[in-house]
Amino acid sequence: MSNKNQIIQHFLSHRSVTNELIQKIEENHYDYKPTPTSMPTQRLVTHMLTSFYKFAAVVKVGNLSPFQEKKEETELNLIKLADTYTAQTVELLESLSEEELEKELDVAAIFGSNITGKQLLSMGIDHEIHHKGNLFVYVREMGHTELPLYVNVK
Amino acid sequence: MSNKNQIIQHFLSHRSVTNELIQKIEENHYDYKPTPTSMPTQRLVTHMLTSFYKFAAVVKVGNLSPFQEKKEETELNLIKLADTYTAQTVELLESLSEEELEKELDVAAIFGSNITGKQLLSMGIDHEIHHKGNLFVYVREMGHTELPLYVNVK
Repeated sequence: MSNKNQIIQHFLSHRSVTNELIQKIEENHYDYKPTPTSMPTQRLVTHMLTSFYKFAAVVKVGNLSPFQEKKEETELNLIKLADTYTAQTVELLESLSEEELEKELDVAAIFGSNITGKQLLSMGIDHEIHHKGNLFVYVREMGHTELPLYVNVK
Repeated sequence: MSNKNQIIQHFLSHRSVTNELIQKIEENHYDYKPTPTSMPTQRLVTHMLTSFYKFAAVVKVGNLSPFQEKKEETELNLIKLADTYTAQTVELLESLSEEELEKELDVAAIFGSNITGKQLLSMGIDHEIHHKGNLFVYVREMGHTELPLYVNVK
């Protein structure tokens, strides 16, 4: 399997679980947060969806500008937002060339050292898994006890 | 950097954060769990430490037997347990040959398809990040508001 297809498969093995959790979140829980200093559910989910898209966009454009963009989401339904972002993210990943994946990016300011596009996407997947791990606790606290495995290996 | 050193660096960039969180957990919170169906803190932390060690042991021995081993931990202090397991895990990772990392393992019964040692370690790191994501919520619920970044990029 190509580098790119491996990355897409790895990403979707986690994003599909994120989306399963999002399906369980009812709108009356969008403001739920476990503690006063925690991110509310809607913000956490939006942060996950938009962040991974930005990780991929950085690899595509070759600089950090996507991380600086501020955009207010107009779609407030999290299931629809997840559908749209997941499709757009896969499309963006599919557009990446081997060169873009192997190119070293000037990201030391944020990530400690310069890393390749492929490595940056790996950090983006780690970011998704981290916040999905947060979200599992939130969703259980909303009363759901039947939760999926942390990764979809089918 | 060699495959092996990259894996060790990736593992430690997350394990060092796990260990920072463990430092914050006082013994009177070892039984804490966010909901009645959640893993209690001590069990969650012990599960993280022992699981990643087992992922590495599977790569070393080339079969799933380490996952079947049941061993009662006698060290009940989580900081000491984390120190011991982290050191033993790094030692085990350092012992892996390029052959062991590239060898396809017969793990389809658990992981959906057969994967190489390197890929299994990547799943083990994902498992660590997932549960560390859970642990962040637990530790915040214990009253800690100054928490590290999800990954140590220094």
